[in-house]
Amino acid sequence: MAIGVGLLGLGTVGAGVAAILTSPEGRHPLVGALDLKKVAVRDPGRVRPVSLPAEVITTDPEAVVDDPAVEIVVEVMGGLEPARSLILRAIAAGKPVVTANKSVIARHGEEIAAAAAERGVYVLIEAAVGGGIPIIEPLKQSLGGNRIQRVSGIINGTTNYILSRMADEGAAYGAVLADAQRLGYAEADPAADVEGHDAADKIAILAGLAYGGPVPRAAIPTEGIDRLEARDVAYAAQLGFVVKLLAVAQRIGDPDDAGVQALDVRVHPTLLPVDHPLAGVNGVNNAILVEGDPVGRVMFYGPGAGAGPTASAVVADILNIAGIRQVGGPQAGLDPLLAASSWRRCALVEGALTSHRNYVRFRTHDQPGVIGQIGTAFGSAGVSIQSIVQLECDGGAAEIVVITHDVQEARFREALAAIEAHPEVLTVAASLRTL
Amino acid sequence: MAIGVGLLGLGTVGAGVAAILTSPEGRHPLVGALDLKKVAVRDPGRVRPVSLPAEVITTDPEAVVDDPAVEIVVEVMGGLEPARSLILRAIAAGKPVVTANKSVIARHGEEIAAAAAERGVYVLIEAAVGGGIPIIEPLKQSLGGNRIQRVSGIINGTTNYILSRMADEGAAYGAVLADAQRLGYAEADPAADVEGHDAADKIAILAGLAYGGPVPRAAIPTEGIDRLEARDVAYAAQLGFVVKLLAVAQRIGDPDDAGVQALDVRVHPTLLPVDHPLAGVNGVNNAILVEGDPVGRVMFYGPGAGAGPTASAVVADILNIAGIRQVGGPQAGLDPLLAASSWRRCALVEGALTSHRNYVRFRTHDQPGVIGQIGTAFGSAGVSIQSIVQLECDGGAAEIVVITHDVQEARFREALAAIEAHPEVLTVAASLRTL
Repeated sequence: MAIGVGLLGLGTVGAGVAAILTSPEGRHPLVGALDLKKVAVRDPGRVRPVSLPAEVITTDPEAVVDDPAVEIVVEVMGGLEPARSLILRAIAAGKPVVTANKSVIARHGEEIAAAAAERGVYVLIEAAVGGGIPIIEPLKQSLGGNRIQRVSGIINGTTNYILSRMADEGAAYGAVLADAQRLGYAEADPAADVEGHDAADKIAILAGLAYGGPVPRAAIPTEGIDRLEARDVAYAAQLGFVVKLLAVAQRIGDPDDAGVQALDVRVHPTLLPVDHPLAGVNGVNNAILVEGDPVGRVMFYGPGAGAGPTASAVVADILNIAGIRQVGGPQAGLDPLLAASSWRRCALVEGALTSHRNYVRFRTHDQPGVIGQIGTAFGSAGVSIQSIVQLECDGGAAEIVVITHDVQEARFREALAAIEAHPEVLTVAASLRTL
Repeated sequence: MAIGVGLLGLGTVGAGVAAILTSPEGRHPLVGALDLKKVAVRDPGRVRPVSLPAEVITTDPEAVVDDPAVEIVVEVMGGLEPARSLILRAIAAGKPVVTANKSVIARHGEEIAAAAAERGVYVLIEAAVGGGIPIIEPLKQSLGGNRIQRVSGIINGTTNYILSRMADEGAAYGAVLADAQRLGYAEADPAADVEGHDAADKIAILAGLAYGGPVPRAAIPTEGIDRLEARDVAYAAQLGFVVKLLAVAQRIGDPDDAGVQALDVRVHPTLLPVDHPLAGVNGVNNAILVEGDPVGRVMFYGPGAGAGPTASAVVADILNIAGIRQVGGPQAGLDPLLAASSWRRCALVEGALTSHRNYVRFRTHDQPGVIGQIGTAFGSAGVSIQSIVQLECDGGAAEIVVITHDVQEARFREALAAIEAHPEVLTVAASLRTL
């Protein structure tokens, strides 16, 4: 019983998907039941790593969606439009959709989910987060019995590559970025990665699944690695930490009387203790740590990008739809786990009200008693300190690094402002969250 | 639409499952649709961490299976019998089964799978391997597009706890085992764990899923940690390795003309380079590394045992069955991914024909030239060496450690025998596989 698949896009990921579908030997036998019926490309003349019959290729993506032989629509073209419109068109035609497009899901996820629920079709997105790492399906299905406390992840390979090299080589951000661009690990315009927007897209998706309701993407506080200094990476190492761009979604208390679950969702460079499970995730790899009750801590690790890994995730979704179709046919009901419709409302808490540990680096005059003054100032502001060390000094200026205990952001900012006003303190040179 | 659940056993895991089912708030809403109808216990008078209505409790497990209100049978009693018979009884009655019982699946999996396929019901086993770590479902569903090259894992928490402490403290195996028994991390009779049988049960299950056909459990070469010496753990560390009890299932070439896939499946203490993803897995945690084409390397990490994690996995399976039931009702077809029936025949290759790297420790007379003699002997036997070092000597005897490159087991054993015959060599004191 063959199942017709239509592919929108035949770039890196699309070619990877086509390669799997056209070589089913040794894979799950259900792969052999998938029949690639139509593929939309921009330039039919381009040479590609996978060869397909000419009659399968078209330059009209709507023709793929509309082809009656296409039963599952796979969107791997990327970008917001026409991807969004094509996804909605497939849903309207009652065809399930598989997409690797995190931007479209992070920005138009609610619209797409509503349309899919209305029409009763699946929209599956395993490839949108974590490349080849199975994380969407485990969150939706394998961890459904849990109350999720926190999802935290290294979910942008480009920045993790840059941070790994900064840590290994003591190199400056700009130099490593330039090299990463040369090697193809960073885009010519690296903003989406290095400013944290890509990670914010992805944590919005993970949070929506983990907590059962959409998260306002635009409201996620996002800080990238583009202003991170090599010396903070080096100081962190001296103190037993590594710096990673972490995306976090954390439950704050129980739902309120209206049933709304408060969440703390954010993206920023973060100091992790070296023995933290995420601390050893290096290079372009990704990892997502899920903390739940009663499962405890489980982590998913692997290649966060690339044609092969991403294609593996896309095919997983196609297989899931094909497998479920054997249960009840195309007209059957939806599996609520796989469909992952919203079941709760979520709201982000105000950043000033959240609590974290912090790493702060002060530049001060190099004179006796400054450490004591900073310690005293934090103490009188009610900020409890784990350690305070003078790490270096040059030309009359000293560098003092403080690691705080958990403190409410508002109180911490107030304390920093007060300390910065001390005449011995030149500046707050860096301030980073710490796990 | 409530779905009736029957529980066989209310020990640690059973009570954990009951605790989730009776407190659905904050979990996936489908948990609220699960109705715990009947629970079989051995001693109804025992005080338990979860309180259930008296009419739900019975001492007759068959009454749970036979109860018409029970639509899903959950076996968490452990042991081979009556677990096996009760599972078969549930299947015969057309009721899907969830079990956390790795022994029964490793030993009677083929019989159970055949009965389930014949009757068209699911038997789900997420909790049987890796405790709370989602690994069974990802292998069956999320990685179905891949050709799996190798599955390797730390899948026994007790031995990993012992090995972690041996490495951290330089302590002897016997002393750590005694302490682990005192702390409840090891059983009074630790044989199943420390001799590797539990890990062999689990890798048999994983291999069956990864390669699509049952693996003969009894034929898996199994070596435990019970003869491991503290000095080999220490030498390994000096050379940049950690010692872990690894369970491995590796594909050897393509299927033969009869369609049989050759596999190298084994359990033994193994030296891992410190930067290997599994090297940092410590304490009672488990992790499974899956290598596939085209996904590359993905790893699943988390708590390998305990009431909460195992209950999380059991409930995942119950939810999957309940979710699928909403697609097509109890009479619908099976999802071939979830059902995971065999689609290929597998056979184990003879151990002597497999190839590995090795760590060997020789005790020799402490005299000049011995290193050269050993190196020459390996060389003339065609065994390529990565490093050879003299690590210690006392009382006229020296300890010489060799790390080989990949070599066929038969050739390696031959070389060892030849070297042991040298008059300068006292004995082959240890020989361990190396990744």
